[in-house]
Amino acid sequence: MARSTRRAPVLRLRADGSSTQRPDTLAGEEPLEIRVDGEQWLVTMRTPGGDVDLVHGLLLSEGIITRTEQVRQVSYGPGVGAGGLLEYNVMDVTLDAGEGAQAPARRERAVYVSGSCGICGTSSIEAVARASHFPVADVAATVPLATLLTLPEALRRQQRLFDGTGGTHAAGLFSGEQTLAVREDVGRHNAVDKVLGWALRGGRLPLHDAVLQVSGRLSYELVQKAAMAGVPVVAAVSAPSAAAVDLAENAGITLIGFSRATTLSVYSRADRVI
Amino acid sequence: MARSTRRAPVLRLRADGSSTQRPDTLAGEEPLEIRVDGEQWLVTMRTPGGDVDLVHGLLLSEGIITRTEQVRQVSYGPGVGAGGLLEYNVMDVTLDAGEGAQAPARRERAVYVSGSCGICGTSSIEAVARASHFPVADVAATVPLATLLTLPEALRRQQRLFDGTGGTHAAGLFSGEQTLAVREDVGRHNAVDKVLGWALRGGRLPLHDAVLQVSGRLSYELVQKAAMAGVPVVAAVSAPSAAAVDLAENAGITLIGFSRATTLSVYSRADRVI
Repeated sequence: MARSTRRAPVLRLRADGSSTQRPDTLAGEEPLEIRVDGEQWLVTMRTPGGDVDLVHGLLLSEGIITRTEQVRQVSYGPGVGAGGLLEYNVMDVTLDAGEGAQAPARRERAVYVSGSCGICGTSSIEAVARASHFPVADVAATVPLATLLTLPEALRRQQRLFDGTGGTHAAGLFSGEQTLAVREDVGRHNAVDKVLGWALRGGRLPLHDAVLQVSGRLSYELVQKAAMAGVPVVAAVSAPSAAAVDLAENAGITLIGFSRATTLSVYSRADRVI
Repeated sequence: MARSTRRAPVLRLRADGSSTQRPDTLAGEEPLEIRVDGEQWLVTMRTPGGDVDLVHGLLLSEGIITRTEQVRQVSYGPGVGAGGLLEYNVMDVTLDAGEGAQAPARRERAVYVSGSCGICGTSSIEAVARASHFPVADVAATVPLATLLTLPEALRRQQRLFDGTGGTHAAGLFSGEQTLAVREDVGRHNAVDKVLGWALRGGRLPLHDAVLQVSGRLSYELVQKAAMAGVPVVAAVSAPSAAAVDLAENAGITLIGFSRATTLSVYSRADRVI
């Protein structure tokens, strides 16, 4: 996590004309290039740290793997190394086709995605809505309202990068009141990919007994990632988009927004909240 | 702007066990496929509305055009139309090579980007840092601190989608205390592309006398977009990332974070704040 933050000088100015020069802590943000079987697959801007989890999470959410055995090897490739910036910013993945890994055949050229990309890897708009290997519509999991109301604060308490920088999103997996994993990143989608990749690597898929709690808003892509990992309940501190609600309804996911200590809003499958 | 929002039923639950069923307003989020000269170029998830501005802004920030004359035609292509969802979600762009438009040659296959993509269109990590047609390092613009401190509230007052949904980001271009343009979107990068595309279409580039104010955090990609449009001052309500500060320093952009009515932080080129 050496480069997950960086110190920089900042000039703080106030309306009364006074000023202070002091060092500030910034959230790291660097490109990560991912190569699959020797071919460039995608590049994402991300906060360094948890890169192996991130790669597994992206391979999961893009429909390429569902089990850790489908990845034969993951390692940092040769970095550019000129000034240090790009070292450890390339990951080489070798898939195990014998284990049923789906090579990303559609991507034959360099493809760039951002920190909040989630529809990458499909090849037409019609393919955006994609079937999950772990359907959740029939999952009978229930979660007490009282537990759901504690999760935003439980997540917030574990946001160490945010404490220092104020510049990162977080995603957490919870089972009951137990924290399974919390990850942070400048990109909210990376934070989700990191916790889902952690779960995949630990053999915990499908996550039928887990709640995914995120720090910000809920976009279509975040719900899609949860669907790919079999998460039945997704909650956010802020608003979901229209497409996020549509997808949650279609996938049978319980979607929760504006979760704020004493109240929350349920947009789909409210039967799981007890 | 017909589909910039959508009404949906929501179940509001409270810690005391009471609940209310009521309609809620959600921010629209739908894919937009952009075709350039007949070839699929990219797809972005965006809030419908301002699509022509968005397309121009993306073409600008990806280094394909710098003047509106370089676009011969922009029009909605034939939508999928099956259920209405995908209608008006395809835009066909015809470039005018005679005007010096740079066709996106590197993209020969389907490429997908999200609402916060800004390094799309390059073909290797080394090319991420890209030269702008409108360098700002030597731009002598200055902005009074008192003016900068008013911009977050000026932007907030014009966030009509946010008022209804709580689920959108905003970007505004300001000249002195005058509002040039404000745009909203579920993707912060789309909001920036929409205001920059508006400026390009109006023949206002380079934006050497403008401040770009955004509602959230500042990523590398947002600063890069500002650099491509010649914006010398970029301000945000929340934190910049380390890469955003690095790029602002290299490009000679004044970067401001944590701008909150009575205080703000300057990370680079503080000489423009008077």
